[in-house]
Amino acid sequence: MPGHLRSPLAPARFPELPEIAGARFAVGEAGIRYRGRPDLALAALDPGTTVAGVFTRSQVPGHPVLWCRRILPRGRARALVVNAGNANVFRGREGDEAVRLKAQSVAELLGCRPEDVFVASTGVIGERLPVEKITAILPDLARNLRADALAAVARAIMTTDTFPKAAVRSCAMGGHRLRLVGIAKGSGMIAPQMATMLAFLFTDAAIPAPVLQALLVSACEPSFNAITVDGDTSTSDTLLLFATGRAGNAPPASPEAPELAGFRDALLDLCVDLATQVVRDGEGAQKFITIEVTGAIDAASARRIGLTIANSPLVKTAIAGEDANWGRVVAAVGRAGEPVDLGRLSVAFGGHWVARDGGAVPGLDEAPIAAHLRGREIHITVVVGDGPGQARVWTCDLTHGYIDINGSYRS
Amino acid sequence: MPGHLRSPLAPARFPELPEIAGARFAVGEAGIRYRGRPDLALAALDPGTTVAGVFTRSQVPGHPVLWCRRILPRGRARALVVNAGNANVFRGREGDEAVRLKAQSVAELLGCRPEDVFVASTGVIGERLPVEKITAILPDLARNLRADALAAVARAIMTTDTFPKAAVRSCAMGGHRLRLVGIAKGSGMIAPQMATMLAFLFTDAAIPAPVLQALLVSACEPSFNAITVDGDTSTSDTLLLFATGRAGNAPPASPEAPELAGFRDALLDLCVDLATQVVRDGEGAQKFITIEVTGAIDAASARRIGLTIANSPLVKTAIAGEDANWGRVVAAVGRAGEPVDLGRLSVAFGGHWVARDGGAVPGLDEAPIAAHLRGREIHITVVVGDGPGQARVWTCDLTHGYIDINGSYRS
Repeated sequence: MPGHLRSPLAPARFPELPEIAGARFAVGEAGIRYRGRPDLALAALDPGTTVAGVFTRSQVPGHPVLWCRRILPRGRARALVVNAGNANVFRGREGDEAVRLKAQSVAELLGCRPEDVFVASTGVIGERLPVEKITAILPDLARNLRADALAAVARAIMTTDTFPKAAVRSCAMGGHRLRLVGIAKGSGMIAPQMATMLAFLFTDAAIPAPVLQALLVSACEPSFNAITVDGDTSTSDTLLLFATGRAGNAPPASPEAPELAGFRDALLDLCVDLATQVVRDGEGAQKFITIEVTGAIDAASARRIGLTIANSPLVKTAIAGEDANWGRVVAAVGRAGEPVDLGRLSVAFGGHWVARDGGAVPGLDEAPIAAHLRGREIHITVVVGDGPGQARVWTCDLTHGYIDINGSYRS
Repeated sequence: MPGHLRSPLAPARFPELPEIAGARFAVGEAGIRYRGRPDLALAALDPGTTVAGVFTRSQVPGHPVLWCRRILPRGRARALVVNAGNANVFRGREGDEAVRLKAQSVAELLGCRPEDVFVASTGVIGERLPVEKITAILPDLARNLRADALAAVARAIMTTDTFPKAAVRSCAMGGHRLRLVGIAKGSGMIAPQMATMLAFLFTDAAIPAPVLQALLVSACEPSFNAITVDGDTSTSDTLLLFATGRAGNAPPASPEAPELAGFRDALLDLCVDLATQVVRDGEGAQKFITIEVTGAIDAASARRIGLTIANSPLVKTAIAGEDANWGRVVAAVGRAGEPVDLGRLSVAFGGHWVARDGGAVPGLDEAPIAAHLRGREIHITVVVGDGPGQARVWTCDLTHGYIDINGSYRS
């Protein structure tokens, strides 16, 4: 965090994070890359905790992702260890060994198996992770685990995020009150070669791992998979959901169980909250852009069209320039390669139609649109036909700040 | 061309364009959007001219593209009419009618059928094309057709290109000397809503239309389809190749005919020359980047990997910052979704390996790499395995100039 200002799109305040029974946290200063700030976090989870995970689709995943993918099918978790400053990517056998050492160290400290320990790293790609600095202070962290320290974890996993990210939801299941909390770090990549989205969710619900996995995958699609800052995918993107089971509810038998309705909604809402916070901390972002696509053949098609618009540098620079440039939106729709009904194609900014049913709106009053575009929160609505498919995606504008941040010399 | 400086990556000089027997050209000032410069070009082609074409894959193509696609299967051309300043896109029936009026007007002037007249437009999207301004001066152009006026056409079709683009090649077929000339306009989109790549190629070779089409499609893949400025595809991209047949060669019977070897090479070379000129005029471009990918499973996979690297804003800003940021290259490789052998993955800048066989090169001397990155012509080599697939793609860096140009208020 080399002195970059808090994003103008940041939420007004950091939420109050409730404790999750069965989960304790600690942070420490390993000095991996940063000095004078925590860069290592440990979460300890009570026996019986189930886990679900979604990882980067990169063909060059980091060593922690490879490890997590291997242990995830067991469905059990007793710990999570996360460091900032070095992503442990592209290091061959040495990288895998660093993960194993960490997992083993945590397992000994907490009295569990290494395969119960989830691992994530964020920071520089391709440099050696000084794992000995991590294992040296893990005993301190294990001694200082506290139920109320999750907010400190949200700060410890930041790389160049300009604000810590957390969200809280609650719901009911079978008469039991359930809590969900989540933290995330985002797309700040100020020091070159740093990139990763990490999100860790904790709930006290009792949910079997296969059910939890199905719920997480469903929630991830319209949230974390519906955001983009610059279209680049990290080697280390990791989303984990831990369920300690301490709320006392009867475990649901399937993801379709009717008693899960509230949990499903709360989880999706939590994921959207965290995902949009990541966008709000996009590098150089000055405007938060919500893109609604309707009338597509299905939701997946609508999302692909939305993400093509959201990834268009021409659209993003137009919004930065406060220009209602619907021609660029139309061009992006055309580029998506999805079925589009040209005669129905319509575009609105802030609810004001600028193109309707395949053509420009004649005699358009641009004043309310210009006023909308001068704001921080931009809405683009696109109708691409009369199909049932709709999707919402989020992105930010593309500004000089992005170039400043990413085009600077390597420190 | 609102006063933008000639790209620092422009070729040293505009080539001498030889005449192509059977092709004549004229330009004029229709005043569609620009004042005090030609914005309309007409090419007249002798009877017997064959034609091939490749068009944008956009689902929202301009009305001229729709027209050209309809008449292309006839394989014959007698004229081409191109205007700058208005792309005639997204205008419904009115847009189709504007094309028809132009084609009919040219057909009457040249004594051919409207279906022999190819049409292209570049400029603003979504505004009405003032076709009456075009038809008003077409008689002047038809009276002033000259064999030596192609260079003027290259200038007339510019929108916000900072230099006109042309290339020349020659070859032999069956003892006959053949000429190929081509002009193009590029990715300048300074005034918002302006976007299009147009390229028009002329040869005096006698080549049947189906053979010509196969040759053009083959040449387009590793040239125009291997470049990217910002990953956006225009509604109006158009590549046309006209063959007047006046060189006197015996028409080849198939695209595989052995006597076509020289023509095939010359055509590919011409296309690469023009395509890379488009990249050299990319908005805000300060560095020209060649990306070589080898070891992929096939050429298409290699090209997809190369284009993913070329479209990565993180890679493009790193090059702008003269940073040998191979971690971003590796991340882009991972994002491409193509098969990659992690243990073979290697990256070089300017021929200097920074990562080799799956890991960083230890004890790297960064001085020669830094010197290479300070230059205008950047080479990135990526090995992704030991497969036979290779490809070369071209792009430019992403600079503040791009944001300035595309983020400015609509004029």
